[in-house]
Amino acid sequence: MTISEIAARAGRASTQMAAATAEQKNRGLQAIRKALQEHAQAIIAANQEDLAQAEKDRLAKPLLKRLKFDQGKIDSVCEGVRSLIAIEDPVGKTLSALELDEGLELYKVTCPIGVIGVIFESRPDALVQISTLCLKSGNAVLLKGGSEAAKTNRILADVISKAAATAGLPDGWLGLLQTRADVAEMLKLDKYIDLIIPRGSNAFVKHIMNNTSIPVLGHADGICHVYIDAEADTDMAVKITVDSKCQYVAVCNAAETLLVHEQIAAGFLPRVKQALEAKNVEIRGCEKTRAIIDVKEAAEKDWKTEYLDYILSVRVVKNLDAAIEHINTYGSKHTDAIVTQNKDTAMAFMNLVDAADVFWNCSTRFSDGFRFGLGAEVGISTNKIHARGPVGLEGLLIYKWRMVGKGHIVADFSDTSGRKFTHIKLNKDWIG
Amino acid sequence: MTISEIAARAGRASTQMAAATAEQKNRGLQAIRKALQEHAQAIIAANQEDLAQAEKDRLAKPLLKRLKFDQGKIDSVCEGVRSLIAIEDPVGKTLSALELDEGLELYKVTCPIGVIGVIFESRPDALVQISTLCLKSGNAVLLKGGSEAAKTNRILADVISKAAATAGLPDGWLGLLQTRADVAEMLKLDKYIDLIIPRGSNAFVKHIMNNTSIPVLGHADGICHVYIDAEADTDMAVKITVDSKCQYVAVCNAAETLLVHEQIAAGFLPRVKQALEAKNVEIRGCEKTRAIIDVKEAAEKDWKTEYLDYILSVRVVKNLDAAIEHINTYGSKHTDAIVTQNKDTAMAFMNLVDAADVFWNCSTRFSDGFRFGLGAEVGISTNKIHARGPVGLEGLLIYKWRMVGKGHIVADFSDTSGRKFTHIKLNKDWIG
Repeated sequence: MTISEIAARAGRASTQMAAATAEQKNRGLQAIRKALQEHAQAIIAANQEDLAQAEKDRLAKPLLKRLKFDQGKIDSVCEGVRSLIAIEDPVGKTLSALELDEGLELYKVTCPIGVIGVIFESRPDALVQISTLCLKSGNAVLLKGGSEAAKTNRILADVISKAAATAGLPDGWLGLLQTRADVAEMLKLDKYIDLIIPRGSNAFVKHIMNNTSIPVLGHADGICHVYIDAEADTDMAVKITVDSKCQYVAVCNAAETLLVHEQIAAGFLPRVKQALEAKNVEIRGCEKTRAIIDVKEAAEKDWKTEYLDYILSVRVVKNLDAAIEHINTYGSKHTDAIVTQNKDTAMAFMNLVDAADVFWNCSTRFSDGFRFGLGAEVGISTNKIHARGPVGLEGLLIYKWRMVGKGHIVADFSDTSGRKFTHIKLNKDWIG
Repeated sequence: MTISEIAARAGRASTQMAAATAEQKNRGLQAIRKALQEHAQAIIAANQEDLAQAEKDRLAKPLLKRLKFDQGKIDSVCEGVRSLIAIEDPVGKTLSALELDEGLELYKVTCPIGVIGVIFESRPDALVQISTLCLKSGNAVLLKGGSEAAKTNRILADVISKAAATAGLPDGWLGLLQTRADVAEMLKLDKYIDLIIPRGSNAFVKHIMNNTSIPVLGHADGICHVYIDAEADTDMAVKITVDSKCQYVAVCNAAETLLVHEQIAAGFLPRVKQALEAKNVEIRGCEKTRAIIDVKEAAEKDWKTEYLDYILSVRVVKNLDAAIEHINTYGSKHTDAIVTQNKDTAMAFMNLVDAADVFWNCSTRFSDGFRFGLGAEVGISTNKIHARGPVGLEGLLIYKWRMVGKGHIVADFSDTSGRKFTHIKLNKDWIG
């Protein structure tokens, strides 16, 4: 089948998926859980072929580790499917209900988006997580995983598709793409695909965003800031700076730039330098910073760089406004934090900084779907529409307007007829 | 100023607009209302220059009528601004609140999207409506109206900007574009502009969608269907078909195709033909239709055509599934209606048809922001993300995650520390 045919089939399947009952979808998930365990041996064997090839291709150790899919990983993804079964069905929820006229009622009801295209990294666990999230939310999905996991992904997709079919879910709701050329093809299929979720490096996500007219949910850069206000508790400021920078450097919610109010800089900078250097962080400072502590020089480019490493750029700013101006100029609208004891200053910061997550007196590292209590995370979005910040299952949903009449026509409400809409809020759920 | 400079200024203004209080925004709207009346003479004079030029350019009568902006229109837009002042501020609403740990609280709070680019038709009223909607929702806006209304739009934008400034709203929150080249330039500025709303013809909206990487909210086609089920009340079916087709033919929610269950076709088609022909509707039928009533032949192309005229294509279908298949193949995901007395059939239709609006026993023409009780309508969307169907003020909003801690860091919640998130739902609003 061509990619266009796979996508068209997913499009047809998506209408059936949207109409599937909660019970049917949970039966599908249950069948998937069972099948993954039943086929554990074959899955692990396929993964070992991928691993052998990857070793031959001299893949880096951390990549090999991510690629590995053993019994422990199978147990872990099955546990994830179990929690997904336990949560309430997100489809069919009534968001609003309104009487327009006697016997004419309008309901806004949640529904799946349709067909989601997901491009993900080398971990085969991601295939199970994403496909089951899409199933639970009633979406069809086209998946493209890392090519080094091709054999593992192939068998996982087969096992999942076949298991879902036993619950009566439609053929083709899960489509597996194989190559980069397949992805390029998919990006053109706005006729069938409603949303693309790319997971991976900045450059990769940017490439996707610039090469499709399909809406993209994701984030390219994660340039997060910590701003230490003049009225900060300096102990807290050091602790939050170190956690934001060092707790895990390779992720998008790690801080890349520290902004310090000039009134507190002389006392604070030497302390934070000591704490950061104890963690082997390289500091790159502006001129004012370097007048206080002996560190490397920061260039203009540093304010725009997501290091994803033990490096932190530091800038001394005149006041809150200058900090906000810096963040809104160089930030990536991801996560920015202020440390201050002054509530008014914190509120101004949180109102004026344009970011998905604005934090007061806590680490930028909290920006995460699990920590936010969203359950499984679909991704993190720096979009300004649909979904922002950590995105859970509800990012895979939209709504339909459902209206029920008794033969109502618009002509009866024309200027000359004089009949008026009642527009009375109804406190009830959709009748379906 | 270049378009890029206008957009950058709007970007800076948008952060101030987002932080503006409800009281300040309402003061701005009040000042705009007053200023429009105070400058009524100058506005009408500018409009008369536009009208004179348009007559010289031999614009069609209906266009001239839309272009006209007299005292009556000024009163009417001022009345619109008055209702906007009356409604509750949509910004700063708490959508959810969660305790993550003792003293660590997360709030999901509504906020404006940022900078909206709106391209609209010749009516100068649209400029007032759109700019005040954006002001109320805290967004900055770039506007491009019809070139035939250039002088009217220029003075309206000036009056509105100056009036808003007296309430302390930031300079540049409203930017006016002048030419098509300006629009082409704007479509490239994804750095500054967060959402484009194009209003106008299909071809125009499609052109915009295909020429920008900025998200677009809107609809190109409006190919709406009415499906008459075997168990329909035929009196009701005739009434709904005629209203859906004829009540106003030039709009996106008018029906373009009628689908009829084969079991009811022999009785129903002659009746609906008579009713439609009484309204001068030309019918184009499939082969089975033409075996029952004497009408023109429908070609494949007819199923894909938005006539916006007194023309209706008619197809006899075997059953509900065939009707749904037709709609999901040829429809534009806008509005589709079923007429039936059977609730199960209606539910299946509404679950399986992929459209923003799915209606049971009422006219497709109800698909409209005013009729839906949304107040002012931003537009109608056939997107599958963010906002669907008629879009009111809430389509101009998104949310921020706001978190407040007491020095909380992620390291304390690591696997080894053993500290767990509480994830307790809070029944309170954001503290700001």
